[in-house]
Amino acid sequence: MPDFDAEFRTKLRDLFTWRRDVRHFRTDPLPPDALDRLLAIADQAPSVGLSQPWRFVLVEKDAPRAAIRASFEIHNKAALDGLDGDRAELYATLKLAGLDQAPVHLAVFCDPDPDQGGGLGRQTMPETLDFSTVGAIQTLWLAARAEGIGLGWLSILNPDDVSDALDVPKDWRFIAYLCIGYPQQETDTPELERAGWEHRSPLLQRVFRR
Amino acid sequence: MPDFDAEFRTKLRDLFTWRRDVRHFRTDPLPPDALDRLLAIADQAPSVGLSQPWRFVLVEKDAPRAAIRASFEIHNKAALDGLDGDRAELYATLKLAGLDQAPVHLAVFCDPDPDQGGGLGRQTMPETLDFSTVGAIQTLWLAARAEGIGLGWLSILNPDDVSDALDVPKDWRFIAYLCIGYPQQETDTPELERAGWEHRSPLLQRVFRR
Repeated sequence: MPDFDAEFRTKLRDLFTWRRDVRHFRTDPLPPDALDRLLAIADQAPSVGLSQPWRFVLVEKDAPRAAIRASFEIHNKAALDGLDGDRAELYATLKLAGLDQAPVHLAVFCDPDPDQGGGLGRQTMPETLDFSTVGAIQTLWLAARAEGIGLGWLSILNPDDVSDALDVPKDWRFIAYLCIGYPQQETDTPELERAGWEHRSPLLQRVFRR
Repeated sequence: MPDFDAEFRTKLRDLFTWRRDVRHFRTDPLPPDALDRLLAIADQAPSVGLSQPWRFVLVEKDAPRAAIRASFEIHNKAALDGLDGDRAELYATLKLAGLDQAPVHLAVFCDPDPDQGGGLGRQTMPETLDFSTVGAIQTLWLAARAEGIGLGWLSILNPDDVSDALDVPKDWRFIAYLCIGYPQQETDTPELERAGWEHRSPLLQRVFRR
């Protein structure tokens, strides 16, 4: 078994601390083999019943990218309209999308009834398939960060818009749209915190005993 | 910024490979500070709008543990009844629950409407709160593994049973029941694969281009 020594554990903790939801990307491409390597690592994530329900869609062409961008603009504007003045101005400056800069766009879906896995473990909680897919994204995120590559998760989208734009099977559930590329800046502080939008709160508020 | 060098990246890859969904635990307790440290690391996970929607419930008393166990037994039996002979026998031998051995039981819930985060990023996809909670679990899982501690995710439970047994707010969504402790055995191969239940399939089946 590998030796996960104190030095490794310290660096792993640094990795969690410096992992960011990146919004500002450099436009230069990733190294040729980086994406294949990162997807292979993500594919090792745990999955309910070993079902590997994640489906990775690399969005490369202009037309689907433009359709995704249009969906984002509509829903981003709707979110803005729902906020009062100061908060709306702040929100507008957050530049939530790395859509225009990131060289790699990766849409992630979940197959809601994969043959693989024999249905094991998901009878009472079918959403564990979605959860497994999220685990693959988290794995990808950390592996990317360790290579200096940033990832931004876009959720201000209508899932049906994304499925239509990408022409995927109707029953696949849309989980995430990921922008991937080198970040313009490294930081250990969440952008929403740096922008004064929100701050993390003490952990003890979230821990209970029974 | 920390230097995530080649040696670290290799060990990180080992960590992903050796992370397991553990079912067979030693019964000895964790070191006194381990759980606090792991929860603090999990709390650094990314969350939509920086909302930190996860709620960690440490299940310590006998009564709630017994209620959870009863729910598991009912639904595990139901899953068994739905399978044919050979497969049922295999399933029965999988010993899916580390409930009786693991020293730590951690139930994880999601607050479906946290004040923190100002609702940012979750208007079109409220399930991103659940997804953030799963990210915290994945972070905990990896951090634990780096300390030699194993985690097993139990999903064969009825969410209402768990919420009732733990007397948590009615609107919290149950995400996962985690058994945590030192594993009896280290392995780089999923238990379902070792038991012949299922095998991982080639990644290329899960990658698409548009």
